[in-house]
Amino acid sequence: MERYSGLSRRASELPASPIRKLVPYSDETEKKGVKVYHLNIGQPDLRTPKIYFDRIKTFSGVDDYTNSAGLIELREKFSRYYKKWSIPFETKEIIVTEGGSEAVSFAIAAVADPNDDIIVIEPFYANYAAFAKFLGVNVVPVTSRAENGYRMPAIEEFEKVLTPKTRAILFPNPGNPNGVVYTKDELQSIMDFAVRNDLYVISDEVYREIVFDGLKAYSMMDFGNHERVIIADSLSKRFNICGARIGAIASKNKQIMDAVMKMAMARLAANHLSQYGAIGLFDLPDSYFEDMTREYEKRRDVVYETLKDIPKIVVNKPQGAFYLAAKLPVEDAEEFVKWMLQNFTYQNKTTMVAPLGGFYITPNMGKDEIRIAYVLNSEDLREACSILAKGLESYTQRKIFAKR
Amino acid sequence: MERYSGLSRRASELPASPIRKLVPYSDETEKKGVKVYHLNIGQPDLRTPKIYFDRIKTFSGVDDYTNSAGLIELREKFSRYYKKWSIPFETKEIIVTEGGSEAVSFAIAAVADPNDDIIVIEPFYANYAAFAKFLGVNVVPVTSRAENGYRMPAIEEFEKVLTPKTRAILFPNPGNPNGVVYTKDELQSIMDFAVRNDLYVISDEVYREIVFDGLKAYSMMDFGNHERVIIADSLSKRFNICGARIGAIASKNKQIMDAVMKMAMARLAANHLSQYGAIGLFDLPDSYFEDMTREYEKRRDVVYETLKDIPKIVVNKPQGAFYLAAKLPVEDAEEFVKWMLQNFTYQNKTTMVAPLGGFYITPNMGKDEIRIAYVLNSEDLREACSILAKGLESYTQRKIFAKR
Repeated sequence: MERYSGLSRRASELPASPIRKLVPYSDETEKKGVKVYHLNIGQPDLRTPKIYFDRIKTFSGVDDYTNSAGLIELREKFSRYYKKWSIPFETKEIIVTEGGSEAVSFAIAAVADPNDDIIVIEPFYANYAAFAKFLGVNVVPVTSRAENGYRMPAIEEFEKVLTPKTRAILFPNPGNPNGVVYTKDELQSIMDFAVRNDLYVISDEVYREIVFDGLKAYSMMDFGNHERVIIADSLSKRFNICGARIGAIASKNKQIMDAVMKMAMARLAANHLSQYGAIGLFDLPDSYFEDMTREYEKRRDVVYETLKDIPKIVVNKPQGAFYLAAKLPVEDAEEFVKWMLQNFTYQNKTTMVAPLGGFYITPNMGKDEIRIAYVLNSEDLREACSILAKGLESYTQRKIFAKR
Repeated sequence: MERYSGLSRRASELPASPIRKLVPYSDETEKKGVKVYHLNIGQPDLRTPKIYFDRIKTFSGVDDYTNSAGLIELREKFSRYYKKWSIPFETKEIIVTEGGSEAVSFAIAAVADPNDDIIVIEPFYANYAAFAKFLGVNVVPVTSRAENGYRMPAIEEFEKVLTPKTRAILFPNPGNPNGVVYTKDELQSIMDFAVRNDLYVISDEVYREIVFDGLKAYSMMDFGNHERVIIADSLSKRFNICGARIGAIASKNKQIMDAVMKMAMARLAANHLSQYGAIGLFDLPDSYFEDMTREYEKRRDVVYETLKDIPKIVVNKPQGAFYLAAKLPVEDAEEFVKWMLQNFTYQNKTTMVAPLGGFYITPNMGKDEIRIAYVLNSEDLREACSILAKGLESYTQRKIFAKR
């Protein structure tokens, strides 16, 4: 019998994480004793609130399975949290997941079959493409552009990519990798488009709190049509517990949540201790979020001010999350990132950022763009960005010399 | 544009967990003040080793992402552990997963595309069907029978279900739900079949230590042909940390492991604190496993001795894990399980087991079978099984009266 060997097609086509794939280069550089400023990955340096560890220390007995939907106390905390944001989720409409990652995967699986399409707005959180590929689902991009501040593309662009297999639109707000916070009008236009074309909206709202300049991050739950909205959420960034892998999927659509519950039952449960610890985090005062957001806003300013005067750069002031995307005067940003790691140091230090090509589906898009995660303190950030600027100057000079 | 609403087909076809779906009935019964002995779920009552919690208490700093492949110290512990079992996995051939569940899902995704086939031996660990359905993959059953001690079916039965889309065989050993430990000859015949037909073998070896009567659980790594073997593993049962969701996927096939690493990167990491705590568990002395296995063997004896004399029961003495499957003199075991919860108490106590129908794919197979997880101490187990026997007698009598 003829049978193909090797990998499944889906596995062979899985994209490598554009955020993590250059890690071997930085490992190499660090082994040489060079200090690398890591602005490539969204792992903040902020402290995990003490109450989380304190609660976990009081855990006793057996580290056993929780309910597949999560600890009831944690789901109740989520429900109360959403209501503070005027998002009317009852406890039974919330299932605790293994991070936002699992929430997005469950949402895609609930609405899309193999070979169905999900629309994303590129550049987009790159792992969406891997979750979709894992499930045999196509991600279909609509392009937002650096020159236009990565704003929501015109709805005509979405209409163009519709097919009979389009099932949903998936996007983060506030945005990763570009820090865009969509306006009420932009989101309303997306909801209208979804309603007109009978699509689900999978809304990744993990950066809800981190919004600057007095703006507000609207939830897709603010636009009615609740039966077609699925919220993917995570405590990772909000409480600096990225390692806990605790998130949530929430929807008023009972059919969707019943199906998600079956998915949750199959993988049994999310981590017990982290759920137990996370219950305490919801009691932090509002000032916790205010302090966190003020800190990120300060860092945003440092990065933006340091980069904006680089000749020929295209850079927009982010409005939320903790990422900045920029277009550099280079041909190939991935080559530049590698070059920084391998060839450039200033006072025995260098800076690592993420090339943005992997955050696009359209071939060659974003080849000259990068993402900076401002996850270090302001002083380190200022130095890291200034090293990046120096390196960029040296890199572009080198190219000019090489051409002579 | 015509587009179907509602769920994806895969979501609407997801099986509900046969282990968890009757939980609402037992909740109801417990609310009435009745004590329910839970033999339906594989959540042991044994203590989680103290060293696990002690290590976690010493964790300080940020609960941040680990490497997507897991903490290097934990992977090294896994590698040393495997070598003690003469399974030659190097650290780089092991990726830490969110429980055995994620390990099996990653393995299926790595080798099978939507509409491909994976062979399972029914009755089988029911969640395999959900993982496969989630990925759009078909599980194709070969049936083992209670009357034959649930031994490995003849290889001709496997040959019969082969199609050009068959990609792998997936099974647990020691077995869940039947406690079967396959012989060297049985496993060799499976490997020969896999080699002849160019299939992968996904071997779920999470109960490796729990084997009775001086038998040994062979690993599929004991039969050469390493390029086609993928091991799914878990610390849940071995160390009584079901809630930690820490497992591993391991293979000598570099192509497979490179693809699995991309899947692991997409979901970022497994839980940090539980990984950190689990490192300490590998230092437990061999006597830890000996004590655990002796305890389960004692329980196995209690359950088997209490059930074997029930008239018309078909029951086999389990050789490993902590499950016993039995054929009862009832038409519909699910109905019987519900009846026990709703109508039968002895001294205000009743017993809950799992109906086995959901552990089969073939329609109506296993309808009169149940699974018992012997996860309580011997005294409780003896009472629970004796209540089950009394309930069964009453149930069958009731049926006779009803027919008059």
